[in-house]
Amino acid sequence: MIRVAILGSTGSIGKQALSVIEANPEIFQVSVLSANRNVQLLSEQAKKFRPDKVVISDETVDSNQFKKLCFEFSCFQGAESISSSAFYEKTDLVLNALVGFAGLLPTLAAIKAGKNIALANKETLVAGGKLVMECAKFHNVNIFPVDSEHSAIAQCLSGENASGVKRLILTASGGPFRGKKKDQLQQVSVEECLKHPNWAMGPKITVDSATLINKGLEVIEARWLFDVGYDKIDVIVHPQSIIHSMVEFIDGSVKAQLGRPDMRLPIQYAMNPKGRLAASFDNLDFNKMSSLTFERPDYETFSGLSLAYQAAKIGGTATCVLNAANEVAVHEFLNRRIRFLQIVDLIATVLLEHKPIQEPTLEDLVSTDIWARNLTQELCKGTV
Amino acid sequence: MIRVAILGSTGSIGKQALSVIEANPEIFQVSVLSANRNVQLLSEQAKKFRPDKVVISDETVDSNQFKKLCFEFSCFQGAESISSSAFYEKTDLVLNALVGFAGLLPTLAAIKAGKNIALANKETLVAGGKLVMECAKFHNVNIFPVDSEHSAIAQCLSGENASGVKRLILTASGGPFRGKKKDQLQQVSVEECLKHPNWAMGPKITVDSATLINKGLEVIEARWLFDVGYDKIDVIVHPQSIIHSMVEFIDGSVKAQLGRPDMRLPIQYAMNPKGRLAASFDNLDFNKMSSLTFERPDYETFSGLSLAYQAAKIGGTATCVLNAANEVAVHEFLNRRIRFLQIVDLIATVLLEHKPIQEPTLEDLVSTDIWARNLTQELCKGTV
Repeated sequence: MIRVAILGSTGSIGKQALSVIEANPEIFQVSVLSANRNVQLLSEQAKKFRPDKVVISDETVDSNQFKKLCFEFSCFQGAESISSSAFYEKTDLVLNALVGFAGLLPTLAAIKAGKNIALANKETLVAGGKLVMECAKFHNVNIFPVDSEHSAIAQCLSGENASGVKRLILTASGGPFRGKKKDQLQQVSVEECLKHPNWAMGPKITVDSATLINKGLEVIEARWLFDVGYDKIDVIVHPQSIIHSMVEFIDGSVKAQLGRPDMRLPIQYAMNPKGRLAASFDNLDFNKMSSLTFERPDYETFSGLSLAYQAAKIGGTATCVLNAANEVAVHEFLNRRIRFLQIVDLIATVLLEHKPIQEPTLEDLVSTDIWARNLTQELCKGTV
Repeated sequence: MIRVAILGSTGSIGKQALSVIEANPEIFQVSVLSANRNVQLLSEQAKKFRPDKVVISDETVDSNQFKKLCFEFSCFQGAESISSSAFYEKTDLVLNALVGFAGLLPTLAAIKAGKNIALANKETLVAGGKLVMECAKFHNVNIFPVDSEHSAIAQCLSGENASGVKRLILTASGGPFRGKKKDQLQQVSVEECLKHPNWAMGPKITVDSATLINKGLEVIEARWLFDVGYDKIDVIVHPQSIIHSMVEFIDGSVKAQLGRPDMRLPIQYAMNPKGRLAASFDNLDFNKMSSLTFERPDYETFSGLSLAYQAAKIGGTATCVLNAANEVAVHEFLNRRIRFLQIVDLIATVLLEHKPIQEPTLEDLVSTDIWARNLTQELCKGTV
């Protein structure tokens, strides 16, 4: 029995993880459920999955419903409660499905507690990849990727030697604006941005997919997860999102992982990597499949992808800045305070202002994150 | 250093294996070269690769060139010499690139001598799969597939548990007559048949690809190599021959192996399965790749594929008959003594006449093979 703490249980990944757990009650058990402030859904989940502990991270939540929840379950409140819940001894695996830099401290807490991690929070590795991976190595903790691309790469690397790997090939759907040019993207609305062609995901990652910043974050994530240099990580646009990513080997062989665009597959693979679990969802049907195509990304229109590679190559705190500026800019865009193309412009400006620290400590990362957020906020105000 | 005995060195696979060996002189060394009767090429190969032993299987060869070869190298003649060369102590791996049932005895000899086998001779497993695999298990010998499809499946299965496998999906190009119906195939010529759209191969396998019998033989080969029931082996037409085959897992994940249609890749993977070797040939270029498509095989037009599944399900000596009748019929077609569609009709007739033996011994297989060849020959004469 694998006892799972779910950080971010009311979000898209959290809900799908619970559906995997529900379909495999003989394998998984919920030890902790944590959410930001959706008490309604958290209460329903708690009643169904009976966790030992329940966490609400937002300290302002004070509803009657929350009080009722606390009456029935062992409840904790506040952001630090998420991290401390990672230490709970009756947890085997922490699924980190938090969004953004907020996931970093709980990831480190889980590693220090010696818990294996199923990581959906890619910002953890974008901001502090080196620190996190070194810490995981030191504590002998495995980090299993939940992102479909990284899950695909992990599956393709299974049974292979690192010396045989030539490059990782991350596939990208191209997002809702594939084929468009910059002048056509001046006035796109939040609603157009949230219409992803293939995947149903949370709003932040959906905007990241539209700017292709998401693919840049994934390149950085892949660099740390698989310990491969950036010159060995390529992106290819594959609009059908059937091939989730590939690995090319030095002998010219390419291995690809295919599947329906359903996050439950990488979630359950990450939560139980020792053995595949029968699917509780539909399989690929090759007889009904449209043709699979590939194209080079349009780095000019989607300059966020180039920007991510640049930040990656600068290294140190540069990727932390990339992430922080992006988080603020996307938030501002979703609140209709800036335009779509300004997201990447803002990140570029903040990156230019930044003096990167190589080999940053956790404190360096936290202060860099705050600095970059503040600057991005100020720049946003200037543009209103 | 891996010392390789190449059985069938002057054929298509044998020549490509030698080019792999030439590109990797620090890894491979040739211990034995064997050919049927092409003394000219065998002499050139022997001078270049300096094997310890050279074998000509055809006993009628008596040229001056052969005498010269025997003067310079340790030469052996006759079909049994192929099998006995498999026992040579300075061989680590036997590459069996013989064509047809003739490969069975050398395969068994190599297994009994405890040599690992790179197997290009699929007829070995079609005719005597159960016997061969049991023998390999008993002698703790590994059989590495050289067929691109089976190499793809082996690569996709690497690092996976058998319990996670849902089905194997063999891809088929569909051959030169894909999309045609039976009435259009009445009068096809040998030349049209030998124009394979993607692969340059020997004549026998090229005709087998045109009838789709080849894919049927591969289904049977896969059944024995990977110990998977026929209900878990499917065929899908993929005209671009980029995906060489796939494995579907119980969680809905599909792993595929892709590459250029170049046999050197599966050959070197089979000859050195512990590590991938750098390619001495071109890689896939996704930016230049046409779209990848999939379709259901046309079992009605290419009834040889259905016939192979039927023989497979009957089991025992039925697949030995399938193979023998096919070998004779293809030979007769290549010599323009029967028409294209008669190949499958002949096999069907011979299979109907056969009383299958379950759990056949080697003697049963040899006598069944002779019986089926004789009957097919007789039927061919009747049709002249």
